Amino acid sequence: MRWSRYFMPTLKEEPAEAEVVSHKLMLRAGMIRKLTAGIYTYLPAGWRALQKISEVIRGEMNRFYAIELLMPAVQPGDLWKETGRWEAYGKELLRFRDRHDRDYCIGPTHEEVITDLIRREVSSYRQLPLNLYQIQTKFRDEIRPRFGLMRGREFIMKDAYSFDKDEAGAAQSYEWMRQAYVSIFEKLGLQFRGVEADSGAIGGSVSQEFMVLADTGEDVIATCTHCDFAANLEKAEVTCASEDCPECSLPPEKVMTPGMHTVPQVAEYLNVPERKVLKTLLYDADGMAVAALVRGDRELNEVKLGNLLGAKHLQLAGQEQVEKWTGAGMGFAGPVGLKVDKIVADLELRLETDWITGANADDAHLRHVDLRRDAQVNAYHDLRSITREDPCPRCQGGIRMTKGIEVGHIFMLGAKYSQSMNAAYLDEHGAEKPLIMGCYGIGVGRVLAACIEQNHDENGIIFTPAIAPFEVTIIALNPKDEMVRNHSESLYNELCSQNVDVLLDDRDERPGFKFKDCDLVGSPLQVIVGAKGIKNGVLEVKERHSGHRHELPLEDFGRHFQEVRRKVREHFGLDAG
Amino acid sequence: MRWSRYFMPTLKEEPAEAEVVSHKLMLRAGMIRKLTAGIYTYLPAGWRALQKISEVIRGEMNRFYAIELLMPAVQPGDLWKETGRWEAYGKELLRFRDRHDRDYCIGPTHEEVITDLIRREVSSYRQLPLNLYQIQTKFRDEIRPRFGLMRGREFIMKDAYSFDKDEAGAAQSYEWMRQAYVSIFEKLGLQFRGVEADSGAIGGSVSQEFMVLADTGEDVIATCTHCDFAANLEKAEVTCASEDCPECSLPPEKVMTPGMHTVPQVAEYLNVPERKVLKTLLYDADGMAVAALVRGDRELNEVKLGNLLGAKHLQLAGQEQVEKWTGAGMGFAGPVGLKVDKIVADLELRLETDWITGANADDAHLRHVDLRRDAQVNAYHDLRSITREDPCPRCQGGIRMTKGIEVGHIFMLGAKYSQSMNAAYLDEHGAEKPLIMGCYGIGVGRVLAACIEQNHDENGIIFTPAIAPFEVTIIALNPKDEMVRNHSESLYNELCSQNVDVLLDDRDERPGFKFKDCDLVGSPLQVIVGAKGIKNGVLEVKERHSGHRHELPLEDFGRHFQEVRRKVREHFGLDAG
Repeated sequence: MRWSRYFMPTLKEEPAEAEVVSHKLMLRAGMIRKLTAGIYTYLPAGWRALQKISEVIRGEMNRFYAIELLMPAVQPGDLWKETGRWEAYGKELLRFRDRHDRDYCIGPTHEEVITDLIRREVSSYRQLPLNLYQIQTKFRDEIRPRFGLMRGREFIMKDAYSFDKDEAGAAQSYEWMRQAYVSIFEKLGLQFRGVEADSGAIGGSVSQEFMVLADTGEDVIATCTHCDFAANLEKAEVTCASEDCPECSLPPEKVMTPGMHTVPQVAEYLNVPERKVLKTLLYDADGMAVAALVRGDRELNEVKLGNLLGAKHLQLAGQEQVEKWTGAGMGFAGPVGLKVDKIVADLELRLETDWITGANADDAHLRHVDLRRDAQVNAYHDLRSITREDPCPRCQGGIRMTKGIEVGHIFMLGAKYSQSMNAAYLDEHGAEKPLIMGCYGIGVGRVLAACIEQNHDENGIIFTPAIAPFEVTIIALNPKDEMVRNHSESLYNELCSQNVDVLLDDRDERPGFKFKDCDLVGSPLQVIVGAKGIKNGVLEVKERHSGHRHELPLEDFGRHFQEVRRKVREHFGLDAG
Repeated sequence: MRWSRYFMPTLKEEPAEAEVVSHKLMLRAGMIRKLTAGIYTYLPAGWRALQKISEVIRGEMNRFYAIELLMPAVQPGDLWKETGRWEAYGKELLRFRDRHDRDYCIGPTHEEVITDLIRREVSSYRQLPLNLYQIQTKFRDEIRPRFGLMRGREFIMKDAYSFDKDEAGAAQSYEWMRQAYVSIFEKLGLQFRGVEADSGAIGGSVSQEFMVLADTGEDVIATCTHCDFAANLEKAEVTCASEDCPECSLPPEKVMTPGMHTVPQVAEYLNVPERKVLKTLLYDADGMAVAALVRGDRELNEVKLGNLLGAKHLQLAGQEQVEKWTGAGMGFAGPVGLKVDKIVADLELRLETDWITGANADDAHLRHVDLRRDAQVNAYHDLRSITREDPCPRCQGGIRMTKGIEVGHIFMLGAKYSQSMNAAYLDEHGAEKPLIMGCYGIGVGRVLAACIEQNHDENGIIFTPAIAPFEVTIIALNPKDEMVRNHSESLYNELCSQNVDVLLDDRDERPGFKFKDCDLVGSPLQVIVGAKGIKNGVLEVKERHSGHRHELPLEDFGRHFQEVRRKVREHFGLDAG
């Protein structure tokens, strides 16, 4: 591609609308433009990168027995009513009515549509297993779309759905997808981790997230310093010795704590460490009043609490509820004499006693509380997030925290959708059985953003060769110089004929301007064609990721260049290409 | 692909929901399934065919300097309000509101979005020309979606938009697109014609349609038996000698025609040929009362009338309007003394006189009407559709009627959108000028449907090799026979390694069932692998389009097969591939 005929409008200035670096750089490098909140046009260079990512995904999905199709973006509301998600999904589901006043939505995901297709077309075990995928534009009406392609409203997803006869088959399908995902992110040249994850609103039992590692990531991953344990912070299990401690020797005693609403305030006022003060968090869980207890120096993990309760909607109690359940204002709740439906406590609370808790009375706390003696705890459970101080739940090794960006998620769904939608097959003996499903997503636009979050410097994007819109940029330093023009054109044609994606910067601009622009748009390799070099019989080749410059002889340039190219691809874990 | 692991659910029965053959066959061949009215899932085989079509389109668009991007499907209503199409577009534009209660639509076309992008990014003549295209899922809320992919609500389009400095540049961009379209439909192996067309709601001055020729087509094309004139019936110009005839020698005379409302009734009652009775058709054209006159044996062409009047909405007058304008009931309108704003007459009405017309009185007509003498005709204009009896407007040769399916349409838009949206650039002298635009569409799904309408027989689809989901189907007659299995597998692997798209029918089914299915799904070539043939040292190869069977020796089978393949591709006008 010749830059002079291309449409890649680069920006010198930092765009005000962008917060994160991938968003800034995609705007500056002329890859995307915002149409309206959370909705972007993919400009030619951005679209090239997305197509490259899609092709890598296709190759691996096909290799692991998934078959591509394309389902509609617009979906009838009736299917969503069957699974109950028409009501449950929230405002992210963009619902509308057509000219005949029928309910529709723009699909944020396709479990309903694929299950409807399969229940009509599959009737026998002989048609199984099946794994169908699509790469498609989806819509989710985010209340606050942000970070460019990272959390948009309209976005491109690869979503796959597997159908098996039984759990064993489903486990095989899931494992193939896990392998496909590992292979996809390797082939894209990304540093990533597969981590245990919570299944969330999609449902199902087992799930795994794929995280591109980046300091700017929003997600926190807990990994072990010794074994290969890795889990999303939401999910990472905290293990705990199981013995109960002896009973507290002192009886509970009420102390006045005027205006002391928070753990730090209470700890300081009573001169005890924060870890001895219990946090009592009150929740409305699908209409049930629940108290959750953790140590004062810990953070409650709401995902774990929600899973324990099996709650669809979990919400911190409001002032009115707090007053009704405790008989006191906010900040003085405690487990002793609390009027709630359920009290759950973090596992480690069994290991100690003699707690300070709210007294369920204004401006008062209790000391010397023993949970088994003085309160009615319904369950002890893992309720807090893992910390660097905790042991690895697998091997008792150390825990390290890493930041990452979720780019893929695979789920074992079981029969959640097939049961609610009555998608069944006849087995070898003529018995009707529900299909066992899995689903598998990759955010295609998010992969692009994550790649840039992981690979950039102060000058711009450093693309991995597999994702780069152009693997090579030839910079013709002064294209009006006939010698420069001839050399750049002939090199351009040579690389094109070798199927290398190459951009020829043939613009009539100053060298400094072109160097800056080329660093910004991030081709892994730059070839600088200047009159001086040609006279000396050399062309300069710059590796974008290392900044390293090679002076390669014009004589046999192609062979020398391919050698440099091979090394750069190797750096990103890619084959010769 | 192995059929046993594929998802291509074929149907034996004619599907009741389908009216046209392409729709029936796409359902039966397991290529599409309906989700809801006008909205289809593209099953794997259908999706393969659509992707092949898209790749051919991409190749030629790129070759003719168009650059691919992807714009959003969901578009803000504000942009459509700028061009006035938010109100003008009708109910086909699916409008909705997001969670913040802002107006949006799902894009049926992208003039507004691309013009908005370009007015922000292009400011100088140095950035021009530009031609940007996308292949995208679009939505048009058709009141009566029908004929499968031919007229769906959700559909895949290639749409391109060119931006030039001036009319000359725009003409060059348009010509490149015309050449690209010719090349695309040739490379797809289709019989087609490029025809002059009306620009319709998209607007602009010049436009051309690309029609795939098929007896089942809905559109009628008028072509010349001598020169290369070809035009859509809506558009085809009718030429006419220009001399006026002498005045009628008799004065107008009222005759009673009780209950005679139609031209045939009046002609019979008065014993004159139908061509001597004038049809007076009354229209409401954007609120203006208009009478259009054509000969009794002709059909008025409403597209021509609408263009002459420059009317946005043209509607036949209702009973109330007719009574108000004529003073009589329906069926007795005539140009003499008519109370309308405008009377227009077809060109050929200048050539004769002595007409019979309605008398603007119940149950009465006038005879001996001379239009120039007795009526106030505002304009004589080409208002009727061309017929087989008319001469070619270019060379006076004969006119032939052919049926076709519109698969592409290219438009010169001029400054229609750039002016209403203020998309301008600075020219060489610093003067601000509007961008001159063109737009260019191909219905990707419609190309697939049209290919099947053009190429099928009673047994199923006959795919052109460029569109076929699989160019070759290997039919393993009894895959349980080890010899058959080994030969089919090794042939399958050989063809795969040569990048031939091949389907291996390895299903454990009876031969008759497999032959029927393979004819239905329509691979251009079938290789039949049976035990008997292998023993005789031959494999049978069947050409789907001719039914011709070749017995090719197993020895050096590959070479012989490629020879047959080359001839089949040649039949569809394709290179060796």
